This record gives sequence, structure tokens and C-alpha cells, in this order.
Amino acid sequence: MAFDKNGKEPNQIGHKLYIISMLVEDRFGVLQRIAGVFSRRGFNMDTITVGKTHTTGVSRMTITTTGNEKIVEQMVKQLSKLVETLKVSDVNETESVVREIALVKVHSPDFASRSEILNYADIFRAKIVNVGKSSMIIEITGDYEKIDAFLDLIKPFGIKELVRTGLTAMQRE
Amino acid sequence: MAFDKNGKEPNQIGHKLYIISMLVEDRFGVLQRIAGVFSRRGFNMDTITVGKTHTTGVSRMTITTTGNEKIVEQMVKQLSKLVETLKVSDVNETESVVREIALVKVHSPDFASRSEILNYADIFRAKIVNVGKSSMIIEITGDYEKIDAFLDLIKPFGIKELVRTGLTAMQRE
Repeated sequence: MAFDKNGKEPNQIGHKLYIISMLVEDRFGVLQRIAGVFSRRGFNMDTITVGKTHTTGVSRMTITTTGNEKIVEQMVKQLSKLVETLKVSDVNETESVVREIALVKVHSPDFASRSEILNYADIFRAKIVNVGKSSMIIEITGDYEKIDAFLDLIKPFGIKELVRTGLTAMQRE
Repeated sequence: MAFDKNGKEPNQIGHKLYIISMLVEDRFGVLQRIAGVFSRRGFNMDTITVGKTHTTGVSRMTITTTGNEKIVEQMVKQLSKLVETLKVSDVNETESVVREIALVKVHSPDFASRSEILNYADIFRAKIVNVGKSSMIIEITGDYEKIDAFLDLIKPFGIKELVRTGLTAMQRE
């Protein structure tokens, strides 16, 4: 989600994708305060996921943002100052498992289009989770590059709807 | 993420899980305003995902919350008043595909624990994405009940870390 108030494109020169991972206490209004840290400084969030951890009362937030190293360093510093923040780090993609799930409803009114889409789904290890009269819902899991590549491939058939969770990440041992 | 300022347990009598799905314009500060709608009214958000759609400038937010029908109706009405809201609906789980992805790092120092965990992963169609000296990272996809059931099963081995994206949903044709 591009929150950039200056309307900058995320892929400008020197800007790349960063993943910020936070452990936060489940206190009232914490999401609003975190979103406030970003918006006050004019930084964009591309995706956000907030999910439970195995510790009661503690959630994991994963935020992706585009920027340069300096901006991200500054964001991590600001976020660590919030009272609810237990831990915040800039995720190193090469040392981590990064995953996202996408559901895509693709136009497939006839046998030819269906079998071609099934072929692509097979290559990407995507699953068909629903087949209707004129469309199918496909579930695909992976990092964002894999999902983007799959979406590019099936775009010509006509994407009717797309939902993506946004990235979540875990450091390898 | 329990934002309930009264510290209520989500599973109190008459309360159940609701999934609110929104299409929003990517304007600056939109997440903060949405979080504000919840916090001003003292409603909790359990999970949130914000991801891109196939339309540039439009994101999909999926929020899970526990409450009763009246509360959720009121939330949907309030959220629909925001200028950035293009569409907001209360997802009917039986008519939709609901998915979440979890990454779990589980303690597995020896062959016996590893092979037992592998067995469970197989039953749940979960994938082993990383194996370290004393732990494995498992990726599991499904609705929250399936993920909860899997986590219960492997809990005795020792969960070192858990990240979950939160739910995303798509209506069937």
C-alpha cells in the first residue's frame, strides 16, 4: 500500500524493498501508533501483516517498505521507541524464509483456457481451490517474486480478482 | 492482535470470529484512519493483512475481529464512510476461500523428533522449508482452524518461533 504523500514511485533509483519485522505487545491502539510513525515521516508501507505468535499477548507485525538504507535505519530506530515494541529488526532476505499467499480468480470459460492455466499452476506448485462456470480460484504461496511471475503468466486470461496477504518472514537457524 | 481496551477475552459467550474485507485507495495515512475507527470504538482487531490487488492504487485489507453481529454491522457502516473505502463487506466464510500462511520454527534436535514432525507435516500437507542443527522451519497454509490444529500437534516438541500472516479471503463464484 503506497502511503507516500509525495506520490513517489516505489522503484525509483536507489530504492529497494525492505522488510521490517516487529514483535509488539497487544495493547489498545498499537497499530494506530505504528501507522502514525510511518505517516508522520511520510514513509510508505507496501504491505502489512499482523498475526499472532505462540506467546499470548504478543503479535508479530511484518511491514514491507521501499526506500534506502538510511530511511529504513531511521524507521527501525523510531519504531523501537514505542512502548509496545518488544523487538524490531530489518529482515535480511537471504538469511530468511520469506512467504506470502495470494488467491487469484482467473477468467477461464472453456476447456482450452482451463487446461493451460492448470499447466501453469502445476509448474508453480499452485493449487486450484475452486472451479466455477467461468472462473477458477488459484492459491499460490511463495516469495513475492514467484507470485509476481505467476501473475504475469496468467494475466492474459483475465484476472477477475486478486488478494495477497503481504509478506511474512522468519530468520533461518 | 487484541486491541480491546477492556481486556476482554475474544471467546466470550455470543462472540465469534468475523472477517471484514475492504478495498481501499492507497492514500497517505489510510491505515492510520482505519485503525482509528476501530480504536475509537474500542473494538479489537485480531489479525490484519494489507496486500496489493491487480488494480494499481488499490489495496485489499482483510481484518479479523471477534464480536457479535451488531458490532460488526456497525463497524462495516463506519468503515464505509471513510473517503478511501471503495468497498467493505463482512465475509461469509462458507461462501469464501479463507487462507492464512504460518511459518513455525520447531525444536527438533534428533532423528526421532524430526521424523515424527515430518509425519505430522505430511498429514497436514505442510512443507519443510529449512532444517538446522536443532530446529526446522515448517510452512503451513490453510484456514486458521487447520493451522491451529497443526500447532497443537507439534507444540509438545517446543515451538521456538511462530509467524502468521493473518487471514485473507475471496468469495467463490
